Amino acid sequence: MSDQAAAVELITIGDELLLGFTTDTNGGYIARKLADVGVAVVRRASVGDTQEHIVAAIHEALDRTGAVITTGGLGPTDDDLTRDAVAAAFGRPLVLDEAHMEWMRERWRKRFGRDLPTTNRRQALIPDGARKLFNNYGSAPGVYIEDDRGRWLVMLPGVPREARGMTDDALMPIIRDKFGQTAGAVIRSRTLRTTGIGESLLADRLEADAPLRDAKAAGSMAYLPGVEGTDLRVTVRAASSSAADSALDRVAGALRAAAGEYIYGEGVDDMAGVLLDRCRARRATLCVAESCTGGLLGARLTAIPGSSDVFVGGVIAYSNEVKVRDLGVVQEAIETHGAVSEQVVRAMAEGARQRFDADVSLAITGVAGPGGGTDAKPVGLVWIAVATGDRLESRKLNLWGDREEIRYRATQAVMDLARRLLI
Amino acid sequence: MSDQAAAVELITIGDELLLGFTTDTNGGYIARKLADVGVAVVRRASVGDTQEHIVAAIHEALDRTGAVITTGGLGPTDDDLTRDAVAAAFGRPLVLDEAHMEWMRERWRKRFGRDLPTTNRRQALIPDGARKLFNNYGSAPGVYIEDDRGRWLVMLPGVPREARGMTDDALMPIIRDKFGQTAGAVIRSRTLRTTGIGESLLADRLEADAPLRDAKAAGSMAYLPGVEGTDLRVTVRAASSSAADSALDRVAGALRAAAGEYIYGEGVDDMAGVLLDRCRARRATLCVAESCTGGLLGARLTAIPGSSDVFVGGVIAYSNEVKVRDLGVVQEAIETHGAVSEQVVRAMAEGARQRFDADVSLAITGVAGPGGGTDAKPVGLVWIAVATGDRLESRKLNLWGDREEIRYRATQAVMDLARRLLI
Repeated sequence: MSDQAAAVELITIGDELLLGFTTDTNGGYIARKLADVGVAVVRRASVGDTQEHIVAAIHEALDRTGAVITTGGLGPTDDDLTRDAVAAAFGRPLVLDEAHMEWMRERWRKRFGRDLPTTNRRQALIPDGARKLFNNYGSAPGVYIEDDRGRWLVMLPGVPREARGMTDDALMPIIRDKFGQTAGAVIRSRTLRTTGIGESLLADRLEADAPLRDAKAAGSMAYLPGVEGTDLRVTVRAASSSAADSALDRVAGALRAAAGEYIYGEGVDDMAGVLLDRCRARRATLCVAESCTGGLLGARLTAIPGSSDVFVGGVIAYSNEVKVRDLGVVQEAIETHGAVSEQVVRAMAEGARQRFDADVSLAITGVAGPGGGTDAKPVGLVWIAVATGDRLESRKLNLWGDREEIRYRATQAVMDLARRLLI
Repeated sequence: MSDQAAAVELITIGDELLLGFTTDTNGGYIARKLADVGVAVVRRASVGDTQEHIVAAIHEALDRTGAVITTGGLGPTDDDLTRDAVAAAFGRPLVLDEAHMEWMRERWRKRFGRDLPTTNRRQALIPDGARKLFNNYGSAPGVYIEDDRGRWLVMLPGVPREARGMTDDALMPIIRDKFGQTAGAVIRSRTLRTTGIGESLLADRLEADAPLRDAKAAGSMAYLPGVEGTDLRVTVRAASSSAADSALDRVAGALRAAAGEYIYGEGVDDMAGVLLDRCRARRATLCVAESCTGGLLGARLTAIPGSSDVFVGGVIAYSNEVKVRDLGVVQEAIETHGAVSEQVVRAMAEGARQRFDADVSLAITGVAGPGGGTDAKPVGLVWIAVATGDRLESRKLNLWGDREEIRYRATQAVMDLARRLLI
């Protein structure tokens, strides 16, 4: 994507990124926002908390692309060196911004009822001639700085909430101002989310489909497998938003025809949100009974704002005693078939539905590992069930991955089963 | 950290990384493993799925460092270009590995009971003269390739489980072989995890501590704030493992003396694991009652393998009806004080403890947002309680961040309260 004018580079700063202790999520957020206005990130780099390395990376990116966004290294402690490195890279001294000092003092007084810690003083230092970018989310301001050849850099904090907020408030207005005239193309992507089918089988199915092959000639398609299923991301570049949108509409239509019911949503749709919407449309209430997932299914459903008009609650039935006492599972069913069995998962679903007087109930019991597997019931064996009053459906799953993946895939599969039953 | 011989560069490949749809977690895993044996990652870069860009990034890294690890772009679909780019960068043709084709055919027959999809054929292509690295976790093999100047590259898949497995199985033996003689220094880090105190206040406290200042002169210390609290990471470089370890022991001792009970663990210790261990040591069982967290607390506790000997289960009391019917909260308490109140959280904790006949019970009720806040009960107001039979402690929290952060911080705080009560 470097073959267009509207291009920037991202540099993320911090030893923790090179040592592997922290995962950068800010870069992705910034990249998505830029793509929306046709600006491409052509390179991402991470460097450590060493002033000379930061300065070198800034020089390289300025020489290559002339447009640089940094995140990280603006904290109050002495391992935060980005301010110093940016000042050095642009050959400017750091000067104390008295207005910002006063704002920080006031903020601490009001918010914490105490004096500003002395370590925070460094957050009021700004390279001479740079423009301060106000931070509504924390105490370190961002900075916009430009050299006499028009090459520029925006410095943002590394704390994700601050980086995201300042991307919206401060970075995007600068980007629109810079590239509003020159960005010749709109890059636009759409993602269709599939679950319940493997990447290779999905690819075989889609690549045999002639109308889809024609439609996607307008752009590129990526298969993105993950624990939620395989996402299909189509990217097109067009002269205008409307041309991009109509190309995407054609591909999405062809994909929906070819992949059918495996598609559960678009974009960042979460299965939990899709299922809640489907329940809401039917005025159905929802409850859960979880064994091996231990609350993860409820956590996913309630992560969606506004879930309380559909979701009632649930039982985390981790021990067998709770399955019997709180969900009405018959003790003999556990003894005869084991806690991970079709009989038990069906009884859990029906028991929860009755106990919470809900319209729809989801239940999960399985062997999440790493221990506890046997030849007959290996790690990854999970039973799921959905009860809707008139129907009680159960499925046996053989899931792969580690404990976290198995648990997550189980929540995805039981919500998908409910989604299909509620069509 | 580029001032030592044992250095490599990481290149992660995929449009999705530049467009911001996927977050790279493999790089962190690889970096941690390399640091353990004294090998530093001096640069990380991400490039898109365009062959010329991948080739350019590989050439740059080979010229700069001569030791390169790539992840991503080995899938079966036509946007997976790393094989082609590596072959081009080293000037070698791609040849079909018949043995690998046969292995894939057999794997599909056994595992899925069907023929190998035609798209997978490309995964058996290997640059001529490269060494195939067997992948126990998926169908794409890795590759080790070296040029006539001794510069080398290891190519790994991008699927996290495969990348991690192959780092352990295939990459690390190569790294030990390459750097076993030359790595003059051991880089070693230790992380102490704090919670319940802000980064600035913690820094003021620690930087006023003279013994700590002396101890940490041997290395560098980073403050890493996150939703779980602020981690303190100390990094030292020493001639031997034992010298590094004893320097770290000195710093850790001084930190423990200065930060006291705010420290709940080391390294990747999770608060859930710390609390489960503490319960286990007292032979105490544990249950939960969750409103705004909707199962997240249970999910965190049961994410720890072996939690079933301590954790019994819980009630997700999302609606007020469930709080009353299943936890014995008095209806008038909700009407008088509201569902988010000290009275209700205490009743939830006590109700759950009795219902599950557990020794310790944790309860959470709050306003996670983004909607539902009022002047009297704003978004971020959360009440937590811990009941232990003889004690019933509650705390009011004013949490910040988005819905996800508020919920996570609430689970962290209630587990921390229990941890302190169970000392």
